[in-house]
Amino acid sequence: MSGSTFGELFRITNFGESHGPAIGCVIDGCPPGMPLSEADIQPDLDRRRPGTSRHVTQRNEPDAVEILSGVYEGHTTGTPICLVIRNTDQRSKDYGNILDTFRPGHADYTYWRKYGLRDPRGGGRSSARLTAPMVAAGAVAKKWLHAQHGTRFIAWMSQLGEINIPFEDESQIPLNPFFAPNAAVIPALEEHMDALRKAGDSCGARIEVRARGVPVGLGEPLFDKLDAEIAYAMMGINAVKGVEIGAGFGAVSQRGSEHGDELTPAGFRGNNSGGVLGGISTGQDLVVSIAIKPTSSIRLPRASIDRAGQPTVVETFGRHDPCVGIRAAPIAEAMLALVLMDHALRHRAQCGDVSLPLPPIAASAS
Amino acid sequence: MSGSTFGELFRITNFGESHGPAIGCVIDGCPPGMPLSEADIQPDLDRRRPGTSRHVTQRNEPDAVEILSGVYEGHTTGTPICLVIRNTDQRSKDYGNILDTFRPGHADYTYWRKYGLRDPRGGGRSSARLTAPMVAAGAVAKKWLHAQHGTRFIAWMSQLGEINIPFEDESQIPLNPFFAPNAAVIPALEEHMDALRKAGDSCGARIEVRARGVPVGLGEPLFDKLDAEIAYAMMGINAVKGVEIGAGFGAVSQRGSEHGDELTPAGFRGNNSGGVLGGISTGQDLVVSIAIKPTSSIRLPRASIDRAGQPTVVETFGRHDPCVGIRAAPIAEAMLALVLMDHALRHRAQCGDVSLPLPPIAASAS
Amino acid sequence: MSGSTFGELFRITNFGESHGPAIGCVIDGCPPGMPLSEADIQPDLDRRRPGTSRHVTQRNEPDAVEILSGVYEGHTTGTPICLVIRNTDQRSKDYGNILDTFRPGHADYTYWRKYGLRDPRGGGRSSARLTAPMVAAGAVAKKWLHAQHGTRFIAWMSQLGEINIPFEDESQIPLNPFFAPNAAVIPALEEHMDALRKAGDSCGARIEVRARGVPVGLGEPLFDKLDAEIAYAMMGINAVKGVEIGAGFGAVSQRGSEHGDELTPAGFRGNNSGGVLGGISTGQDLVVSIAIKPTSSIRLPRASIDRAGQPTVVETFGRHDPCVGIRAAPIAEAMLALVLMDHALRHRAQCGDVSLPLPPIAASAS
Amino acid sequence: MSGSTFGELFRITNFGESHGPAIGCVIDGCPPGMPLSEADIQPDLDRRRPGTSRHVTQRNEPDAVEILSGVYEGHTTGTPICLVIRNTDQRSKDYGNILDTFRPGHADYTYWRKYGLRDPRGGGRSSARLTAPMVAAGAVAKKWLHAQHGTRFIAWMSQLGEINIPFEDESQIPLNPFFAPNAAVIPALEEHMDALRKAGDSCGARIEVRARGVPVGLGEPLFDKLDAEIAYAMMGINAVKGVEIGAGFGAVSQRGSEHGDELTPAGFRGNNSGGVLGGISTGQDLVVSIAIKPTSSIRLPRASIDRAGQPTVVETFGRHDPCVGIRAAPIAEAMLALVLMDHALRHRAQCGDVSLPLPPIAASAS
Repeated sequence: MSGSTFGELFRITNFGESHGPAIGCVIDGCPPGMPLSEADIQPDLDRRRPGTSRHVTQRNEPDAVEILSGVYEGHTTGTPICLVIRNTDQRSKDYGNILDTFRPGHADYTYWRKYGLRDPRGGGRSSARLTAPMVAAGAVAKKWLHAQHGTRFIAWMSQLGEINIPFEDESQIPLNPFFAPNAAVIPALEEHMDALRKAGDSCGARIEVRARGVPVGLGEPLFDKLDAEIAYAMMGINAVKGVEIGAGFGAVSQRGSEHGDELTPAGFRGNNSGGVLGGISTGQDLVVSIAIKPTSSIRLPRASIDRAGQPTVVETFGRHDPCVGIRAAPIAEAMLALVLMDHALRHRAQCGDVSLPLPPIAASAS
Repeated sequence: MSGSTFGELFRITNFGESHGPAIGCVIDGCPPGMPLSEADIQPDLDRRRPGTSRHVTQRNEPDAVEILSGVYEGHTTGTPICLVIRNTDQRSKDYGNILDTFRPGHADYTYWRKYGLRDPRGGGRSSARLTAPMVAAGAVAKKWLHAQHGTRFIAWMSQLGEINIPFEDESQIPLNPFFAPNAAVIPALEEHMDALRKAGDSCGARIEVRARGVPVGLGEPLFDKLDAEIAYAMMGINAVKGVEIGAGFGAVSQRGSEHGDELTPAGFRGNNSGGVLGGISTGQDLVVSIAIKPTSSIRLPRASIDRAGQPTVVETFGRHDPCVGIRAAPIAEAMLALVLMDHALRHRAQCGDVSLPLPPIAASAS
Repeated sequence: MSGSTFGELFRITNFGESHGPAIGCVIDGCPPGMPLSEADIQPDLDRRRPGTSRHVTQRNEPDAVEILSGVYEGHTTGTPICLVIRNTDQRSKDYGNILDTFRPGHADYTYWRKYGLRDPRGGGRSSARLTAPMVAAGAVAKKWLHAQHGTRFIAWMSQLGEINIPFEDESQIPLNPFFAPNAAVIPALEEHMDALRKAGDSCGARIEVRARGVPVGLGEPLFDKLDAEIAYAMMGINAVKGVEIGAGFGAVSQRGSEHGDELTPAGFRGNNSGGVLGGISTGQDLVVSIAIKPTSSIRLPRASIDRAGQPTVVETFGRHDPCVGIRAAPIAEAMLALVLMDHALRHRAQCGDVSLPLPPIAASAS
Repeated sequence: MSGSTFGELFRITNFGESHGPAIGCVIDGCPPGMPLSEADIQPDLDRRRPGTSRHVTQRNEPDAVEILSGVYEGHTTGTPICLVIRNTDQRSKDYGNILDTFRPGHADYTYWRKYGLRDPRGGGRSSARLTAPMVAAGAVAKKWLHAQHGTRFIAWMSQLGEINIPFEDESQIPLNPFFAPNAAVIPALEEHMDALRKAGDSCGARIEVRARGVPVGLGEPLFDKLDAEIAYAMMGINAVKGVEIGAGFGAVSQRGSEHGDELTPAGFRGNNSGGVLGGISTGQDLVVSIAIKPTSSIRLPRASIDRAGQPTVVETFGRHDPCVGIRAAPIAEAMLALVLMDHALRHRAQCGDVSLPLPPIAASAS
């Protein structure tokens, strides 16, 4: 109830702080009998981990995951899977100078007001480091969804600060540190980031996330609509300020005759819905876009107050991502996978196997 | 678990269908001892109800609410409050012609695939009519939040189709059927809607929602972040395709030195955060913006398939809102109030009264 | 969260008070496509309803159930089923004399301390009348379980006050007002009750509940053990003070070599487990026994205090069951059915169809 | 949802298996600012841990707890507290001989049927070893409840097999390995256990649990009644087959004029209610009694089947408690503390500070 558990039937309970001994999660509700080992999880953690390019935080964390429970002889047992990631490169001293002040745009101030406490060690619980266990849990969900339904997840950066990144080639995404689907734009991105670092400033990003091979019929009709759950999951990622499904804000200026995707025996014409109608998946690709704000820990001096309410100036040193969006792609994939996994189990519970005279229509028609 | 319950400590269980005998909800967790009667609830229902102008559906529903339980001698008892709204103007025959086909952009198709059933009576459970009980429950939350914390809610339309509606004057909002904060733009909106109706088409809208007088410290740090819960609540409203908090998608192209709202002894400078940092309320206004897609039930013919998978054409008659966004303002207010109410109780549970050497800083500084 | 919702996947939200306009519940999570009408529900309500013999309260309530939602053309739709039972024979004046005092053994005192309020109308929310919606919801669960798994439920009285009721003949249960499986003991029971009424006193009872045709594998391993959930459900029935599964308190003086039910290819030898091992159903009959305390509203004068804390004497008139256990059999059946239903859906979600080289062994072996 | 999380506002998520690398739990919802270290938790773990007398399993586990998160500078932060206990003395080979058979009275069979898997390592998830994290979490709850409300917990053995243990002297409880409140009976208990061990058999026990200094008003009116939650918590402890509150099964043969505890300005006369009326605490001592069945892992040969369904004989060697009830007292205390803690927070959420003209009456009157 304090917001450390995600999901209803595939439940992830997350624990830890950025600079404590360890972070991790407990997955409760994973179906039994699925082959699982650390090797299924580590690759996604490696995609998210810090220190892999000069454009992200230089904190050096291997983010090696250990399975503490729930797996026996290489298979899930149906009981809770505890995943632990030890923190190895905490340097709390980096944060000593911000102990008594509040970084503009950061959770420092609100945590203090809520709990009456400061945990200045790397942002404590509010650190984006806490997304690592979600990436790990997401890898488990991805494996099950792929095995059962052939579902696949992909995410990429479509905008970095003011630079638009046209989608060119999916195969480029893993080949550059920006998760950019476009080789030509990389030099501009690098130049942009180098300038930002020099200036001691930060910038935002826009990330696209897709799921392909989505079963039709997932999501609940009223409150736990699939798109509502996706919005919740995405807005819960650190620094996210906006979420769109399908046509998103563009739908405001569309006509109904343009927005509603026509149906044909060969599939839908278009995907303005983003794969969700009435809160329930259509079987088309899930199409999600999120806005990530600029990192709030920057070197440039900012006005603030201290804990006594007196005016002061904050300059944040330490090791921070100048654009937290750069590592957000695997996080967004994981959160989408966790939502789908939960709803796949929920659907199985309530509806079992609904048989209809017609197979789901194809995802899209030309 | 089937998505008919909203909230954790202030729980709303919603029931009913558009064309069944009644719709309603059960509110569980309302604090005892609060004065409450139907008269506290009806005004918000009246703001949402159909048939009040030529620009909305002509279905004639008084939407009169009856309190069936949980109130004794004019005060809440702490036990569940059941609110019932009888449906009085169902005309199922209006829907007869769509029984075997699927409206593009509508939940028809996904409901059928999920449940193996069609309830063609006005969209059954997927009808926007199911927001009425949420508006009723929201009125209860608003009353408590106002009494305890002085919180107030307001929502308005900022865009209709392609027409931008500049914010001019809050007092105009209740004076026109569009919830527009701007008298000058009304003729253009009316003309737009009249043309749409004539064309048998529909359009989208953008709605702004605000809460003022928000207690500091509401929201959970990791998953049930206040902004994540708001995104969930808003994306759960029928036809919503996008949600922004504060700077929203605009944050992507901001620098950190611009986005992070500086703190001064007199308050924050700016509100790019939209009143939420690290998932927890800052005490500033909550600033939310949502995108509403065009209504999918339109008169213009659209390609579709029937239940046997054969191609067909759908034209939807019956009484539909040509812009479902027109009545969305009170719904968005209610959903925001329900989120805040839940978190006010959650905060009380976990943190009780946190005492700090400093009162919350003012919501904003010049 | 205020305790008006029961179950996780088959969720019952209960509302109403004894002397308000209506009581009822919302069932969320019922699988779609099941034939359902009021006629499936009314018989169990009739078994529970008051006024059917001189040994129970003379309040005259038809307890006629109305389905407000969730059923279309005679089948469940998968959306919430709202059931309403109007109260017709409230006589609040009967309770006027207890408004300022507290009945010993009654919830009067604790409700007042919790909520700061008194709802003297027939005990308000603490009335056993609130079990009627559970009996109605239980009938829905029974129907599904019987159709899917052949499960059947039965309950009977095995002790009334100090009178033991040996199990003789199941077919007698519906033939007498005591739910006694034994015709010979009826005269003694009637005499006992007549004497109690004359004396203005009340007595307790013991009820046995069984489920037959239980699927193997229901229940969770650690916390939501099937027996733990049954204990929760049973202890939640008004006036219950004890719950046993299988051998119950008798297990304390058994040896392991006596208690553990041996397995044979033909089935288990014995059922000391009561059909649950390690929190999971064995496929044998579920065997549950509950203790019901004597009604606290009695005519005999008792010492108490008033709301100012001054000593006083309470004598309770009005229409009360002299043994609330007499009508408890259908309630206990319903609660057991609701627990099983929830776990049948939970099992389907997590484990789907587990295939093993061996069918479940028979429920019992000679 | 798979039953590894306990509580709503003070939530314990338990993970691990008897013979895996570690067991533990995550506590979510602990109020911030409470002093906490391993030293607050270890003493209760030491009371429960194995190997401390010849009458319990000789498995040698230090059960040393490590706090992985949620505590900073010696105080809780309000974020999740992860507690880990490493397993150090797993000897899986002890269990090799039972891999293909099912112990009568044990969860072997039902786990296999549910999950399609066997984890023969010490019972895997069904081991009573999983109560250790609950004892650890209970110690945190106890500390908070004592600091806030002066609540204290105590449990003792009142029956071992057929030997009744009269309550004589509370101070004796920690002085003997049986948690017996009576020095004179110890020789008989030791002799009984020695004989059982020699015979290769096991026996049951009865445990009494009390909470003193309970706030009035805890518990929900309908489903999450305090006594229902206690029944759920107690029946969820391994091997428990029965639960009584207050007069328990004795209430069946009481009259209402005897059972209902009279109220006086000086307090209640008697405590047949066990401290709960209408599901809500009265402020008196909570009085709970539980029945624990004999251990199912015994050396004596028993009839069983193997995984192919063929008849076989099982003899269980390895290190088992001949009476699992001997170490149950601290477990029962912990579970009671966890229930109260959860409801203390729930009460604070919904009812805040209810003010009444009268303080709670004293817990008992002479």
